[in-house]
Amino acid sequence: MEGQKLLVNGERLKASLEKFADFGRTENNGVTRLALSKEDQDARNFFRSCCEELGMSVKIDDMGNMYALLEGEMEKPPIVMGSHLDSVKKGGRFDGVFGVAAGLEVIGTIVDNNIKPTIPLMLVNFTNEEGARFEPSMMASGVITGKFEKELMLQKKDENGITFEQALKSVGYDGDSGNRLKEATALLEMHIEQGPVLEAENVTIGIVECVVGMVCYEITVSGESNHAGTTPMSMRTDALFSANNVIAAIRKKLGGLDHELVFTIGRMNTYPNIHTVIPNKVVFTLEARHKDPLIIKQVESVIHALDTTVELEGCSMAAIKLWDRNTVWFDETILDHIEKSVKSLGYSYKTMASGAGHDAQFMASIVPTAMIFVPSINGKSHCEEELTPWEDCEKGVNVLLETVLSLGK
Amino acid sequence: MEGQKLLVNGERLKASLEKFADFGRTENNGVTRLALSKEDQDARNFFRSCCEELGMSVKIDDMGNMYALLEGEMEKPPIVMGSHLDSVKKGGRFDGVFGVAAGLEVIGTIVDNNIKPTIPLMLVNFTNEEGARFEPSMMASGVITGKFEKELMLQKKDENGITFEQALKSVGYDGDSGNRLKEATALLEMHIEQGPVLEAENVTIGIVECVVGMVCYEITVSGESNHAGTTPMSMRTDALFSANNVIAAIRKKLGGLDHELVFTIGRMNTYPNIHTVIPNKVVFTLEARHKDPLIIKQVESVIHALDTTVELEGCSMAAIKLWDRNTVWFDETILDHIEKSVKSLGYSYKTMASGAGHDAQFMASIVPTAMIFVPSINGKSHCEEELTPWEDCEKGVNVLLETVLSLGK
Repeated sequence: MEGQKLLVNGERLKASLEKFADFGRTENNGVTRLALSKEDQDARNFFRSCCEELGMSVKIDDMGNMYALLEGEMEKPPIVMGSHLDSVKKGGRFDGVFGVAAGLEVIGTIVDNNIKPTIPLMLVNFTNEEGARFEPSMMASGVITGKFEKELMLQKKDENGITFEQALKSVGYDGDSGNRLKEATALLEMHIEQGPVLEAENVTIGIVECVVGMVCYEITVSGESNHAGTTPMSMRTDALFSANNVIAAIRKKLGGLDHELVFTIGRMNTYPNIHTVIPNKVVFTLEARHKDPLIIKQVESVIHALDTTVELEGCSMAAIKLWDRNTVWFDETILDHIEKSVKSLGYSYKTMASGAGHDAQFMASIVPTAMIFVPSINGKSHCEEELTPWEDCEKGVNVLLETVLSLGK
Repeated sequence: MEGQKLLVNGERLKASLEKFADFGRTENNGVTRLALSKEDQDARNFFRSCCEELGMSVKIDDMGNMYALLEGEMEKPPIVMGSHLDSVKKGGRFDGVFGVAAGLEVIGTIVDNNIKPTIPLMLVNFTNEEGARFEPSMMASGVITGKFEKELMLQKKDENGITFEQALKSVGYDGDSGNRLKEATALLEMHIEQGPVLEAENVTIGIVECVVGMVCYEITVSGESNHAGTTPMSMRTDALFSANNVIAAIRKKLGGLDHELVFTIGRMNTYPNIHTVIPNKVVFTLEARHKDPLIIKQVESVIHALDTTVELEGCSMAAIKLWDRNTVWFDETILDHIEKSVKSLGYSYKTMASGAGHDAQFMASIVPTAMIFVPSINGKSHCEEELTPWEDCEKGVNVLLETVLSLGK
């Protein structure tokens, strides 16, 4: 292969992605393919037939995860590629499915070129990554890596009261726990960025070194409700105005910590929420993400000091931690192989963190894992406008192929 | 009467208020007496029998307003006292009913002392002041003063789908439009303050010169929703953070206008209101009240200039006026009589504005009208904790009696 680089078939990749998008395509060219729905079942069946046509054998585990194996010359743990086929409601045509289609295209190119891989190659489709039908997200990778309890997950219900277990059986994808992925030489999850950075910096490939850690607090500011007409300003303890002070302070204090820190107040509710009544309570979430646990610690220090550093004007505040998760660092050896591969292809790249969660972050606890990103136009994801240029898709899969070949050497 | 002042019977007044509180008394010593409910019907029947025992004739108009007349020596338009018997859910024992009981006590004292009034005296109970069962509030006084259309009001439904008209007939209080109050020498509405000012300033009597004008806007700040984890801070247009700037600016700018101005952001909603999604929209109400229309105009100028004076950080904002109402000034001659009466009794008083709405503000457009306030402990109203000390109730009714006698001279 030296001298002449093996490249994937961009047209076939595009056709494959368009074919997958037919399973649940929406009016506005998005996709609704909830986990274990009819659409997901159809996509799974199509994926299985594609694998089998390529000479792979397909196995299903007890969480419905699909594993397609292409045998290698050596009896070694496989190099795994893949992601998930499920989507959110009115999601896009790239999130998840791109990682699966990318794997298929890599295998297709290898088979086309009559290459017998040294190390076995595997494609994976993780069940219910989105958590859009059954919470939580990354459910099936979470179960096989010991993050979630299987029995609990099987009983999770969708909005119609159907359990995960019932749905799994109804689509015929309840397999054997013996088939769970337990070891791998490497696991590579190819994904769209779901953020605006690559496009804004005009970079084609993101080498993902980690999934950032995060912390989420719920902050409650409490005051007193009174009549909006009869209570002079000086005699109020207005929870909304006080919360506004708290939020301004949060912005100022967190804004100065680190330029890579992101923090969001996404949910905010006011009580009693009547235009003629002074609010007695405001409750909001504050979620912050950064790869460095020391920065997250600083965020928590800021939150805990708020009630002493912010003018609460007679109100009180309480902050409770809803949850947190640590930064997951990906495998350095794999990251080196990816970087070498990108360089050899001459594409622009940057090493970056993933701000969103992915199955790879759970898998990293049991097998060497890394991720590769391609740009998302305007950073849009989980919406019908989700878009990655076909050219970038193709370049991304070339990087994946090159990395797989490099890892197999 | 010179030299020896006529005073009301405080014990009888207290007993009367306690008797009225039995109609719908709640566990925590509040009152639920929704308009035209069984409890309201019982209270109305009790009120009617009290009036008749005092030698008054009771008439009902087509909106269920009750008028009890004590004839005078002269054939002149009556001096009217009264308020409303309905309450909000889990309201207090004083709001509204105090004005009715006060009138009964004034008549009782006059009758006890064998005084034949020069000018006829009338008690009134206005239907559905609260608007808690049928919106809007001050419905019946609004209809008889031409503010609301009767046919529209009759069709207003409660939460069980019962119309105002059905409820009115079911309690037997659908009277004749010929009985509507059309003229009066004076109308005096005695009421609890529903605010904290009198208590805080240690003053017993509020002489209410006006009901303040107000304006209510709905302000929408629009940005863009993106993933809370993947979008760097510098690439966001966060509607919540932008709204935070707008609210801070509103506080600063309106806070400097006038110390009597009150303004409230009572309702605020965030969209999509998901902790992991940057908000793309925040909608909140801004309501401001002041007696001086020039100050209200300044408030509106501040609002209209916000989008040019506040750092919107890429977001946009729009402000629409939901409604406004002008300040209603009460009759100066009546106010003079009240002041003279308070002074003659030696009680502390202050001239003040009402921040809340009352039937009197509508009635003022057809008859000379004024209001008298007594303190509300901690400014609490529309809740079970609503409280006015018995002593203050008694003093208030003494002022009402003295004013009626003064007006009748």
